[in-house]
Amino acid sequence: MLEITKAVITAAGRNQRTLPLQTLIDRDGAEKSVLAILVEEALSAGVQQIAVVVAPGDEVPYAEVIAEHRERVRFIRQVRPLGYGHAVHCARDFIGDDAFLHLVGDHLYVSREARTCAQQLIAVAQTEACAVSAVQATRETLLPYYGTVGGRRIEGRKDLYVIETVVEKPTPTEAELHLIVPGLRAGHYLCFFGMHILTPTVMEVLDARVTVVEADGGQVTLSEALNVLAGREQYLALEERAQRYDVGVKYGLLTAQLALALSGDDRDEVLTRLVELLASREMGREASASLAGS
Amino acid sequence: MLEITKAVITAAGRNQRTLPLQTLIDRDGAEKSVLAILVEEALSAGVQQIAVVVAPGDEVPYAEVIAEHRERVRFIRQVRPLGYGHAVHCARDFIGDDAFLHLVGDHLYVSREARTCAQQLIAVAQTEACAVSAVQATRETLLPYYGTVGGRRIEGRKDLYVIETVVEKPTPTEAELHLIVPGLRAGHYLCFFGMHILTPTVMEVLDARVTVVEADGGQVTLSEALNVLAGREQYLALEERAQRYDVGVKYGLLTAQLALALSGDDRDEVLTRLVELLASREMGREASASLAGS
Repeated sequence: MLEITKAVITAAGRNQRTLPLQTLIDRDGAEKSVLAILVEEALSAGVQQIAVVVAPGDEVPYAEVIAEHRERVRFIRQVRPLGYGHAVHCARDFIGDDAFLHLVGDHLYVSREARTCAQQLIAVAQTEACAVSAVQATRETLLPYYGTVGGRRIEGRKDLYVIETVVEKPTPTEAELHLIVPGLRAGHYLCFFGMHILTPTVMEVLDARVTVVEADGGQVTLSEALNVLAGREQYLALEERAQRYDVGVKYGLLTAQLALALSGDDRDEVLTRLVELLASREMGREASASLAGS
Repeated sequence: MLEITKAVITAAGRNQRTLPLQTLIDRDGAEKSVLAILVEEALSAGVQQIAVVVAPGDEVPYAEVIAEHRERVRFIRQVRPLGYGHAVHCARDFIGDDAFLHLVGDHLYVSREARTCAQQLIAVAQTEACAVSAVQATRETLLPYYGTVGGRRIEGRKDLYVIETVVEKPTPTEAELHLIVPGLRAGHYLCFFGMHILTPTVMEVLDARVTVVEADGGQVTLSEALNVLAGREQYLALEERAQRYDVGVKYGLLTAQLALALSGDDRDEVLTRLVELLASREMGREASASLAGS
């Protein structure tokens, strides 16, 4: 039985320093930072200790917004920005020989069922006793944004796949050659969702790669380590009943806030506001038009 | 001719420390903090120097989010939290003998015409050579939230009033006795919009009141000073063609972001996202319902 008591949240991106501090209203109606929502997603699934990987200097403001959970969270500094895989590897001593939940700090996850996204993922990892990545069937045009997996559907399960290959941001040709998964809609691939249960093997694989990059330069991606993982251990992909929202893109926070609000306790209030706002804007436009014409 | 080259933004509220740091996408499609949007509102109207009144310790994070305008902005610390009028008074030395634009740091202003809200207000202050507060006709039920003015409409102008009385958060009885403005819809009053052009007289009036409160305790409101101003000088209210959004209330940021987006260059993109999101949520709900029933 795989026990998942640790989580790693990577939030060391140099372009998006204030992103985890942005405030949203969660499904329960409470105002929280993006980081606090992610910490609570992990805690909801039984995680006891969380490491947040940050750029140096971000510990203090980040600690303020998760004050409530302070004793569960430690901050780990990524001193050199050597890539996403390197950021995960910064938590190596914290992880030790344990499997762990991993979330990216610039996404929010909105489940479409009663269980949170992390709960769905951990349930599968425990039943199957292996690494599991959440994935989403994604249109080919979006491949430049995601790590993408190839593999095959597990018989009798419509949402679970064995991962055979992982490629970071594949070209359409690479994807067509290596990543087609039978059973998906045409032109669709399984792309990472930003949430994983990983085994300590991933840290071992990253070890070797980090040593090379520290000496010779370059970047450490997580996808290459996960591709190695797929060759060494059973490694599954779960298509979750959920949506992820990238809060780092234009209108990402707005879209995430609307999604959270529309899936939560305040659904009716938010719909009412939307309708009022659209009505008042339209009235404003009509008034402008009629004034302009007079 | 009243020259308005200075602005005071009050952002020293102790409950809302991170509010001015929240990021929104402005009408021009650029990502900015609430504070930067307010600073640009002031600059749009010809203001040259801006004082932001902050709680001690907030200077550094606030300065980061307006780095682009750093040479136009100075921070003034409100060391003791003695009320909103006291916060304005903290900028007394900065203001000297000049009239000034005043904005509150927890509102965003969305104009319904080509001129910004600050531009509309300054235009009237310059023509009439007196203090002017932006107001909005507001339902009686909302009186507990606002400073409210009584007075009379200027003949031949449908949006301009002479202010005779100012009362902070009046009761319905007070409002009915003293604040009815002929010509407004029944049950509506003129409430402050959070944007003012004020004369140095306001600082003089606040002087006396701050001295009393520093000695005897209590709070300094801005409304009581403006009520005195109305007895001493011509003081007007302008009903702006605009909406203000209080970003400090629940879903205030969301509503402000939607209003900005729907009034700006990205209107069509945001409407498309809204429709997609509503459709995908509804599909999610239907799918849940059909699974639950099977």
